Amino acid sequence: MQASSKLAKVFPFLDWGRGYGRQSLGNDLTAAVIVTIMLIPQSLAYAMLAGLPPEVGLYASILPLVGYAIFGTSRTLAVGPVAVVSLMSAAAVGAVVSQTGAGFVETAILLALLSGGCLLLMGIFRLGFLANFLSHPVISGFISASGILIAVSQFKHVLGIPASGHNLIELLGALGGGVQQTNPYTAVIGFSALGFLYFVRKKLKSVLEKIGVPEGVAGFLVKAGPVFAVIGTTLAASMWALDQKGVQIVGAVPVGLPVLGIPAIDLGLVEQLILPAFLISLIGFVESVSVAQTLAAKRRQRIDPNQELVALGAANVASGFSGGYAVTGGFARSVVNFDAGAETPAAGVFTAVGIGIATLFLTPLIYFLPKATLAATIIVAVLALIDVHMMRETWRYSKRDFLAMAATILLTLTISVEAGVASGVILSVLLHLHRSSRPHCAIVGKVPGTEHFRNVLRHSVETCDTLVTLRVDESLYFANARFLEDQVYALLAENPKLKNVILMCPAVNEIDVSALESLEAINRRLADAGVKFHLSEVKGPVMDRLQRSSFLDELTGQVFLSQYQAYQALADNRRSPKSAAQ
Amino acid sequence: MQASSKLAKVFPFLDWGRGYGRQSLGNDLTAAVIVTIMLIPQSLAYAMLAGLPPEVGLYASILPLVGYAIFGTSRTLAVGPVAVVSLMSAAAVGAVVSQTGAGFVETAILLALLSGGCLLLMGIFRLGFLANFLSHPVISGFISASGILIAVSQFKHVLGIPASGHNLIELLGALGGGVQQTNPYTAVIGFSALGFLYFVRKKLKSVLEKIGVPEGVAGFLVKAGPVFAVIGTTLAASMWALDQKGVQIVGAVPVGLPVLGIPAIDLGLVEQLILPAFLISLIGFVESVSVAQTLAAKRRQRIDPNQELVALGAANVASGFSGGYAVTGGFARSVVNFDAGAETPAAGVFTAVGIGIATLFLTPLIYFLPKATLAATIIVAVLALIDVHMMRETWRYSKRDFLAMAATILLTLTISVEAGVASGVILSVLLHLHRSSRPHCAIVGKVPGTEHFRNVLRHSVETCDTLVTLRVDESLYFANARFLEDQVYALLAENPKLKNVILMCPAVNEIDVSALESLEAINRRLADAGVKFHLSEVKGPVMDRLQRSSFLDELTGQVFLSQYQAYQALADNRRSPKSAAQ
Repeated sequence: MQASSKLAKVFPFLDWGRGYGRQSLGNDLTAAVIVTIMLIPQSLAYAMLAGLPPEVGLYASILPLVGYAIFGTSRTLAVGPVAVVSLMSAAAVGAVVSQTGAGFVETAILLALLSGGCLLLMGIFRLGFLANFLSHPVISGFISASGILIAVSQFKHVLGIPASGHNLIELLGALGGGVQQTNPYTAVIGFSALGFLYFVRKKLKSVLEKIGVPEGVAGFLVKAGPVFAVIGTTLAASMWALDQKGVQIVGAVPVGLPVLGIPAIDLGLVEQLILPAFLISLIGFVESVSVAQTLAAKRRQRIDPNQELVALGAANVASGFSGGYAVTGGFARSVVNFDAGAETPAAGVFTAVGIGIATLFLTPLIYFLPKATLAATIIVAVLALIDVHMMRETWRYSKRDFLAMAATILLTLTISVEAGVASGVILSVLLHLHRSSRPHCAIVGKVPGTEHFRNVLRHSVETCDTLVTLRVDESLYFANARFLEDQVYALLAENPKLKNVILMCPAVNEIDVSALESLEAINRRLADAGVKFHLSEVKGPVMDRLQRSSFLDELTGQVFLSQYQAYQALADNRRSPKSAAQ
Repeated sequence: MQASSKLAKVFPFLDWGRGYGRQSLGNDLTAAVIVTIMLIPQSLAYAMLAGLPPEVGLYASILPLVGYAIFGTSRTLAVGPVAVVSLMSAAAVGAVVSQTGAGFVETAILLALLSGGCLLLMGIFRLGFLANFLSHPVISGFISASGILIAVSQFKHVLGIPASGHNLIELLGALGGGVQQTNPYTAVIGFSALGFLYFVRKKLKSVLEKIGVPEGVAGFLVKAGPVFAVIGTTLAASMWALDQKGVQIVGAVPVGLPVLGIPAIDLGLVEQLILPAFLISLIGFVESVSVAQTLAAKRRQRIDPNQELVALGAANVASGFSGGYAVTGGFARSVVNFDAGAETPAAGVFTAVGIGIATLFLTPLIYFLPKATLAATIIVAVLALIDVHMMRETWRYSKRDFLAMAATILLTLTISVEAGVASGVILSVLLHLHRSSRPHCAIVGKVPGTEHFRNVLRHSVETCDTLVTLRVDESLYFANARFLEDQVYALLAENPKLKNVILMCPAVNEIDVSALESLEAINRRLADAGVKFHLSEVKGPVMDRLQRSSFLDELTGQVFLSQYQAYQALADNRRSPKSAAQ
């Protein structure tokens, strides 16, 4: 039993597969059909965003889904190509290719494999906590900035002009320089598709419901919007042979399933790709886990973040071995999958079958699909990523967090996606350390008639000339150890009658070696000045650890269980609250 | 009055100078004489350690002391050349000179100026907190490793062989390769000086006291030990013309005071030196502040760390403008200054005058001073830096801190001083984040008959099927926000009857935007599952901030002042402690 439950931790399908019945099958198949219809245009579009041929997007939507279904703990996560990861892949592969002259597609495939390797290793060594270093404002800022970059980068396809760049400045410059070469046929298709898709996304549902279409059908039609845009513009391009009038089309896509194979591994390329692969893994993981958690909680299910790393790793390795590129769990698609009633990861397998069938039979039909249509689907999709509300809320709630967010956005837009993520992470950590390096401290006195002790500055409390109690509202560790010393020495310099200092520790969850050294120094220096040092309300685990050091032997004072006991024992010359004395 | 007290914050001598009388003068002069006697051989020796001619060490012991006296807040800190900073200067200058072919002395002077600039900027922008990122174990490990490196690097002078290297492996290899070329005269002088200085340091005081010499005189003789070694070996070298037998001597030292001048500033060099200059500033500042604080506390005085940055910056700028190299407050010399009765920074000015006189009149006398003697004084001095006790204590107290310490020691010894410090800092921060990313959490229940709530796993407490209270013993921020979500979703999955979740926050000192988002997500997901979310015992400042967000409006449950109130209001189906039920 225990062995089988351990095995089910690695292969969750052993768990959900046991009770798999006809009803689950029906629900999963329905969801798979809807997700497949949504995924076909998306996989083509995101491949284009990643700078890759359309079939690479399709290949990334077959085996990776099966890989995730085997190892994943989320019942409803829909894995495949997504916008932000495609952008990051394009940036990383573009930089490496321009330096080394390696093949673009081969490099993107290698990147997927490396990203899979990173995810697998992080999962096996249970390093999911690394994702915690990406604070929410940094992630949100990064995704908003990515959305802007992606939308702007796709306008070249809408206008039918060549324009490329790695940041907003380069992109806008290239667009501005090329705009007079706009291809009118492309622009008509592009802006029509944009307008149509925007209407479908924002208005169609309410329009359909007004004329009496049932909600479920209306929802389905909204999700199928991009498919209609694809069909409509493909027909137009094919009928009027627009490709001969300068409209860029998808063209011939190889028919057939991807061929399995181990990609060529060039160690020089690996070295250059490993950092971007790690960042892609981290961002992909954070996005994926956050949507997986949201959906799981709605059904009182759980996901295991470290096992998710393994599953996403397997998906990316499968992508690399089958000619696909980097994938992760997509937000919009997963929500659609959930809403459509998917019950188990089997829905993902059925989706993979659907895409496989499309790859086998439908690719000739998209020969005339204009790239402008794909660009329009991307632009409309990524506009949802730009989260101005979160920026405003962050500004209102915490200037510190906003600073990290603003730096991430600015650097992502003006320098590169990697610089944006890296600076956001570093700034978050520095700001956190800065904050906890000056923790909230209060001198406390006794509230008359009670056993409570409160801040002397806020409350009218009883104090004592020869005794000062300092309460520190933070764990004591290297970043604030010296601050604590400063505070105590200030007390010593300001209170000439001082005989006893109590450090009140109800909020101290840890004392590290640096803080221990500081406590020892405080104890010695107070002793030099003839003052005793005491502790009160030290938590159990902190006390356990202190007992492993010689601090408690050297302590000139005592450790009191409660502050009240300490005060009773030490306050020999009490002074009533000022307000009462006057 | 207020303006003058503000001015006195920048120029502390306005404060202590006012009451300066005959007695202070006498005490400061006495201390200055003793420190000068100690500083003459040290300044020559540390200049040699830094790879510089002896006069640079003397110059670094004149104006920098005056610069510190003007701005410093410590009454007794003795500024000048010290061992660790000399080693770091040698490493940084050596690396840059070998790459660029710039002059060694000019580069060292520029490094002092840059380090002074870093310190001044950090002081003006009040960035003293940056030093807090160096945890005590990392500093201790770095200084121990530096002590080992310094001692080994000086053995070439004791043996009279050429041997150089930037890390322990290179140094030991060079020493091993050169040992058969040992110059016997040099070795006799070197080992005699080593033996003599070791005896003076460890035994002389007790021997003198046994034969009835008063303690004060004995202490003075111990401190003057290096001077006796210098005089003895210089006389020996001069009498027997040992320089002609291969003994390396100090040789001609320019007579006269340093010439003031602005050093040549090469922007290319500046770029390469800026990182080492910053690290030197940081290490120098940490060392200096820690001894200044220790000594100030003994007399119930205070120092201002940010003003100390300004003062050390002024000292280094003065050093750079007068042909000296990087300086900081030295531990041993400051303690001697303090013990000798120095009352104000005027003692530093008098010491500077003493070194100035020595530079004017005594340099011809040290022509025959053997380098082996200087090396011996360095070796004996730095052995005190190697702190095995601290390593053992750290191992016993915290494996996490020990890991950071061990990495610092290993990398300092085997790669470079910069790699050692940098990796120590990064590892400390990562380990801290890792720890606080999995904070201590407890499900609590009510201790029967009281208003107290305790961990259900440790105590026999009353609980309730439909209510779970989670107490988190840490501030909530980006590194642990997701962990909190995991914990709550686990509760949700494990307790099918759950109707209410209370998050008990007595140890939560901050909730950042990431944690706020997590709380909002928890609130929504619990609502989706039909469970209400409540908070209890939220601290004042945390509550103030929450009120700036929309979280409290969306909260499905309530915020209770005390956990007891929350329990009374929500626990509808109480279950007695198991032990009581059985």
